[in-house]
Amino acid sequence: MTATLITGIAELTTNDEELGTLPDAALVLRGARVEWVGPAAHAPDADDRIDVEGRAVLPGWVDSHTHLVFAGDRSAEFAARLAGRPYDAGGIAVTVEATRSAPDYVLVATLRRLVREAVNQGTTYLETKTGYGLTVADEARSARLASGLVDEVTFLGAHVVPPGWNADDYVDLVCGEMLDAVAPYARWADVFCERGAFDAELSRDVLTAAAKAGLGLRVHGNQLGPGPGVRLAVEHGAASVDHCTYLTESDVDALAASDTVATLLPACDLSTRQPLPDARALLDAGATVALASNCNPGSSYTTSMAFCVATAVLQMGMTVEEAVRAATWGGARALRRESGEGAVGVLRPGARADVHVLDAPSAAHLAYRPGVPLTHAVWRAGRRAR
Amino acid sequence: MTATLITGIAELTTNDEELGTLPDAALVLRGARVEWVGPAAHAPDADDRIDVEGRAVLPGWVDSHTHLVFAGDRSAEFAARLAGRPYDAGGIAVTVEATRSAPDYVLVATLRRLVREAVNQGTTYLETKTGYGLTVADEARSARLASGLVDEVTFLGAHVVPPGWNADDYVDLVCGEMLDAVAPYARWADVFCERGAFDAELSRDVLTAAAKAGLGLRVHGNQLGPGPGVRLAVEHGAASVDHCTYLTESDVDALAASDTVATLLPACDLSTRQPLPDARALLDAGATVALASNCNPGSSYTTSMAFCVATAVLQMGMTVEEAVRAATWGGARALRRESGEGAVGVLRPGARADVHVLDAPSAAHLAYRPGVPLTHAVWRAGRRAR
Ligand SMILES: [Zn+2]
Ligand SMILES: [Zn+2]
Repeated sequence: MTATLITGIAELTTNDEELGTLPDAALVLRGARVEWVGPAAHAPDADDRIDVEGRAVLPGWVDSHTHLVFAGDRSAEFAARLAGRPYDAGGIAVTVEATRSAPDYVLVATLRRLVREAVNQGTTYLETKTGYGLTVADEARSARLASGLVDEVTFLGAHVVPPGWNADDYVDLVCGEMLDAVAPYARWADVFCERGAFDAELSRDVLTAAAKAGLGLRVHGNQLGPGPGVRLAVEHGAASVDHCTYLTESDVDALAASDTVATLLPACDLSTRQPLPDARALLDAGATVALASNCNPGSSYTTSMAFCVATAVLQMGMTVEEAVRAATWGGARALRRESGEGAVGVLRPGARADVHVLDAPSAAHLAYRPGVPLTHAVWRAGRRAR
Repeated sequence: MTATLITGIAELTTNDEELGTLPDAALVLRGARVEWVGPAAHAPDADDRIDVEGRAVLPGWVDSHTHLVFAGDRSAEFAARLAGRPYDAGGIAVTVEATRSAPDYVLVATLRRLVREAVNQGTTYLETKTGYGLTVADEARSARLASGLVDEVTFLGAHVVPPGWNADDYVDLVCGEMLDAVAPYARWADVFCERGAFDAELSRDVLTAAAKAGLGLRVHGNQLGPGPGVRLAVEHGAASVDHCTYLTESDVDALAASDTVATLLPACDLSTRQPLPDARALLDAGATVALASNCNPGSSYTTSMAFCVATAVLQMGMTVEEAVRAATWGGARALRRESGEGAVGVLRPGARADVHVLDAPSAAHLAYRPGVPLTHAVWRAGRRAR
């Protein structure tokens, strides 16, 4: 395995407590790992040498919440909703229908295209969820296809109750045959705990069954109004509760006292004309915050983590440092991948060689220059991906 | 001159009243002009043929408000402001100091870099302003350098009263020797009519002198609070009044009854934590609205017109059609370039061949997929620019 020295780094964000953020830094990658991090003046020799000429370097984005296994396009529904025009949307059901009837190669092509698009914008570690299949076979197929193309797969059979089912019977299916069929391809299970989807009791059933099957837990909660999602996530020791748009003070306190990450999805809130979540309250209380894209064709069809970071800084009261950390280390923590050998969202010896070089001298430019594509180069697990 | 046929257009936005928006369209470019626009089935033969394979095509962005002649970087000031940290900013004066002391080649390099960055994102027609020189020689130099690199130059000697001057004496200089020195390189004059910059009386002096010198008029107004900017712009027949963040009902009515375009700069409002302007009130009253970047190193360091369009749709109540039109035809109208031979912001026979091909099947994706770089190809005055 050859070693590559990246030098000429004007600002290196490591997210490592001891290393911190370094000016005039260098980085050595060997194989899929980071081998060395430090001041450019002390950089060791290496086989290859790349000078990034005064650019900023950070860990690749960790996008810990996406829904990339789908077919179809809902841009007309989007445009109508934003224009306040009536539109017989059908919502998630439209995507479920299109996904079920799409052959594997169509789903794989969309998934590949979106992963490539994300990587081209600096995302190096991706979670994705099932949830547009909603039959045993379609959920298993979604998880199987995703497992070959993304880093982490989450079983979201409990996305919505499909037409023709009552909620109780459907949850029985999710917790039984469907869970058995999907579990071999998934590391996580998730439930959409929201009015109109799954109530606290049914959500609890899903989380209990998934934990018993050995899956880690995540929750969609508090997106459309206050609700039991956060409380449930904390009680069950979920790694993350996602959305958190409507939180009570006791939700914030519960998150701060727990190991559950609050994953904020600002592009989704903007696309659905919801308020943006109160990141400041969470951070000030001591909760761990992640930012993710929630990429999906209905409520948030973006792969741009830079957009999420810019929105967090410009409109959610997060500092540049907090937002960048939430979109890298925060996402990794939400996936329990922030420490140990092969850690992501962090640049330290032994971490995965996920490197994002910006076309800018500092990470502040991500918010200072909103919308401008600033990804100059990307390494993913040590391989140059852009 | 060879003719190029662009075919495979899934959705063609022309901004032409009769042509409208066409599905399954084609376009013929010859030299710097559009030669033919219509349904793909009726497309004439051409020397070259390019299939855009189901993508959407629109006129290139017309960015009618930028400040690109400057030196220095104010990202640290930006990050501190957004984090609420104290920072001895110095504001515009910092950029003035850096600009004055920069050699021509440094100013040209920045200008070229930003124009290239804008063109790579689909901007094909650019206005830029002086205003970081603020001496006769430095303003003339700024206008001269800009005139070689952008489409339209605006004299903004009346940007701020420079240190060491009182406002009356400075306006005398602006209206006399400075105007004489800059006018040969500029088509427009502009004044920053705002508390802390130039009051109504001094702004009136600047506009009167500039009109007498044969320059078209533009106004910066109503950015930081209600004020006389809009009224003044309408009274003087200015082509555009820019910012319009704080408007009274009578401002909106005055704009609706005038030929003055209301140019909105949402990236600036976000970067300075101002409210977003009330585009809906302007459009509903019948005013003409443009969207522009206001690219400058202090209050809005973006070249991304797509970001402005996405923000307008997601957060300002504009429909996709309104926002796209405002960022193309609206900008052209604000520069009085929307009609006649070589018109911009519009695709019809005789218009300038400024073409933006999106990596998406419809323009709605600009807001549906915020932050995702969607520029697939660009022609600027008939030359392939990306
Ligand atoms: Zn989701
Ligand atoms: Zn301006």
